[in-house]
Amino acid sequence: MLVLITYDISTKNKAGEKRLRNVAKVCENHGIRVQNSVFECVVNAAQFTQLKLTLNEIINKEKDSIRYYQLGNNYKSKVEHVGAKESIDVEDTLIF
Amino acid sequence: MLVLITYDISTKNKAGEKRLRNVAKVCENHGIRVQNSVFECVVNAAQFTQLKLTLNEIINKEKDSIRYYQLGNNYKSKVEHVGAKESIDVEDTLIF
Repeated sequence: MLVLITYDISTKNKAGEKRLRNVAKVCENHGIRVQNSVFECVVNAAQFTQLKLTLNEIINKEKDSIRYYQLGNNYKSKVEHVGAKESIDVEDTLIF
Repeated sequence: MLVLITYDISTKNKAGEKRLRNVAKVCENHGIRVQNSVFECVVNAAQFTQLKLTLNEIINKEKDSIRYYQLGNNYKSKVEHVGAKESIDVEDTLIF
């Protein structure tokens, strides 16, 4: 299934910058960056559970936030991209 | 249906900052800001078409991007929020 991950990380200090880097790194390992703080990941249920555990451990829950959107398996018709950077076919480019 | 709107607006100059303000303003008029560049909007098909037309006119398609994700009507179980700022019930708080 496609999972969309969006995040806001507070980068007011170095610890925040580190959290941002770490969140981005974990997301990069599981999906495709489609915008600055937006990743699309094709995962199964077990991978999704593990991914959430990992990310939720990194963030500072009082300062940062992460949102997870499950778009299911038939997601291609549900996503539209307008403007810079062409949309990427997540399943064509990912190796798990 | 719930539509998720995510955007990256290039704010390297004043024109970009203005586009960012305008995109945010249109989104604020149609939905709830859930993260810095992420809005959730509950719209019908006609409203969604109009919203896209309006936003796509504002952005600079060579520099900015907008993505639209259709989450359908049964979206509540598909969205998870972790961390700062509580999740908002979009339908409870919006007036169209």
